[in-house]
Amino acid sequence: MSEYVPGLEGIVAAQTEISLVDGANGRLVYRGYVIADLAEEMSFEEVAHLFWFGALPTRAELDGLVSQLSASRGLTPAATRALEAMPKDTDPMDVLRSIVSVQGVAHHLEKPTLQHAIHATGSFPTILGAFHRQRQGLAPVKPRADLGHAANYLYMLNGKESPPELIRALNTYLVLLADHGMNASTFTARVIASTDSDLASCLVGAIGALKGPAHGGAPSAVLDQLEEIGSPENAEQWMREARKRKERFMGFGHRIYRTYDPRAKILKAMCEKLNPKFYALASKVEETALAILHEEHPERPQATNVEFYSAGVLQAIGLPKDLFPPTFAVSRVAGWTAHVLEQAAHNRLIRPQSEYVGPEPRKPIPLAERG
Amino acid sequence: MSEYVPGLEGIVAAQTEISLVDGANGRLVYRGYVIADLAEEMSFEEVAHLFWFGALPTRAELDGLVSQLSASRGLTPAATRALEAMPKDTDPMDVLRSIVSVQGVAHHLEKPTLQHAIHATGSFPTILGAFHRQRQGLAPVKPRADLGHAANYLYMLNGKESPPELIRALNTYLVLLADHGMNASTFTARVIASTDSDLASCLVGAIGALKGPAHGGAPSAVLDQLEEIGSPENAEQWMREARKRKERFMGFGHRIYRTYDPRAKILKAMCEKLNPKFYALASKVEETALAILHEEHPERPQATNVEFYSAGVLQAIGLPKDLFPPTFAVSRVAGWTAHVLEQAAHNRLIRPQSEYVGPEPRKPIPLAERG
Repeated sequence: MSEYVPGLEGIVAAQTEISLVDGANGRLVYRGYVIADLAEEMSFEEVAHLFWFGALPTRAELDGLVSQLSASRGLTPAATRALEAMPKDTDPMDVLRSIVSVQGVAHHLEKPTLQHAIHATGSFPTILGAFHRQRQGLAPVKPRADLGHAANYLYMLNGKESPPELIRALNTYLVLLADHGMNASTFTARVIASTDSDLASCLVGAIGALKGPAHGGAPSAVLDQLEEIGSPENAEQWMREARKRKERFMGFGHRIYRTYDPRAKILKAMCEKLNPKFYALASKVEETALAILHEEHPERPQATNVEFYSAGVLQAIGLPKDLFPPTFAVSRVAGWTAHVLEQAAHNRLIRPQSEYVGPEPRKPIPLAERG
Repeated sequence: MSEYVPGLEGIVAAQTEISLVDGANGRLVYRGYVIADLAEEMSFEEVAHLFWFGALPTRAELDGLVSQLSASRGLTPAATRALEAMPKDTDPMDVLRSIVSVQGVAHHLEKPTLQHAIHATGSFPTILGAFHRQRQGLAPVKPRADLGHAANYLYMLNGKESPPELIRALNTYLVLLADHGMNASTFTARVIASTDSDLASCLVGAIGALKGPAHGGAPSAVLDQLEEIGSPENAEQWMREARKRKERFMGFGHRIYRTYDPRAKILKAMCEKLNPKFYALASKVEETALAILHEEHPERPQATNVEFYSAGVLQAIGLPKDLFPPTFAVSRVAGWTAHVLEQAAHNRLIRPQSEYVGPEPRKPIPLAERG
């Protein structure tokens, strides 16, 4: 037995062909393609095909996958009823976790398949669209088979088609966030898969992990902080006072990247175009945050993380803050499912050890004598 | 970055005061008490108190916890409606995963507390009892505040009180299975907790992992195999032929114990008393399995695992096979919740690495040129 490794930092828990987080060079690679080459050229469906089938699709293969995804946009009767039962103030991540679970009961303990992966990925936008309508007292919008994944998601949320530049922005976001090495939610999915469980079980665990503010649950906190700062002129003073109160800057810091997160770079450029008001404030806040963080820890690398500019892109697309984390899930489910399939193909139970630091064994005192 | 560690075998992923799996000496220790000293003397509620509060309760403390657990046996309106929506052929583990998720939405992103732990633990028998009644076309049975955890669970399943020796047997089972070091479901719960997620998220992930046949999802397979073997006289011939077909013996093998699993030992003695028909066949099958496994791998230790005699105990209690895994969860939730609280108290994001073994970066071919 080795020494205790807090956070399993530096421990290699899986071999994967799906993505490489090249922290030293600030590169994210999906099955041999650098993210910057995919982000604005590829549809989410092409990237999902790359993850699931191991190669970018031909036109015919892409058409096939698009229609399979489109055919997976329905919910089971049980999932529909369970969704209708959700109180309207329920957080959408909890709705997603619950309805993915109910939707998944049809495949109890089946070995995860590509069909399951497509089916689950196709259903996420439907669940969120239907709930978002329901909580506004509106009827759900039927999916449209002629719309791609990003366009249909916005259509089901809003009941109308979105402008092409916003669909394109959402598509790029979905491509950028679709996988990222052995992050906590993907790792969760692989641990669950390693017990030979089914895909739905892996996905509900992954959603539960992504919810956590230390993983994907905090992008709205970026907006909250920017709102508090209010204006670029106010940034430096507000931020220096925040540090005196030991407050964290939201949207900074990552365990892996030693240089600028390549996803944040692309999202930043998108914000500049799509959300100039956000960009004016955010870029000033970023500059100030990096300067202050550098003063405090000159040895640490630049640290704007993907959540910082994600917030501005998702805001520009018109999403309410509480849909930021589940929209992250709409993207990441492509990676989760690919990792589950990979884990299932070369499986070994993931079962680490713990180090016992409790009391030495002694005899229990019977209840009657415990006073 | 270290070498890839398949299954994280031997890696210490957490320090814990909750349990010690002392494989070399065949001991399981809960916070300083050897399981053999607790199994037949303590109620499940006392052990839950030990896990959650760090000490065995006084009579007054126990009464307090018992009434808090009893007060946690209700479901939210949303959980009730979602439960009613579950098709009657749904696997009870899927029902549990889904309804724990719906029930948990009330505590979205709250830091896990003892109250949440008690609340969740109290609700598991209600979910299973109500579903088991519903699938038989029967109305749910209201919980009874005068019954303890084990007795009330059986009461809610069956609509009548069970004989004291069966309640006692279930209690012992619940005590024996309540924690077991860094098993895959507990580890899942801790990974999810490490993202600062909420308790319900940790529990749905843990249930998903426990479902897997390589973890807790296979005790019914023990019964299936015993049924196939049919009689003690048939055991040796059937089993030798099974090995020729490369079939596994169900209920044998564990990564940790180098000597007899102490839980299996206690469950075996219970089977002898409670389920003599099962015992006659199972003990012969065990003897034969161990002999054959020893012939094949003389270097390996004795390997009857907890599932083997669990099956006989749960059968004697009158549970249908598909309630074996969720009854395991009714027990293990005490450990899961204790681990989540422990993780949350000393938190660090569990975020291992992966080793990329995919293709080297190259330029993507545009869709139009892919043929």
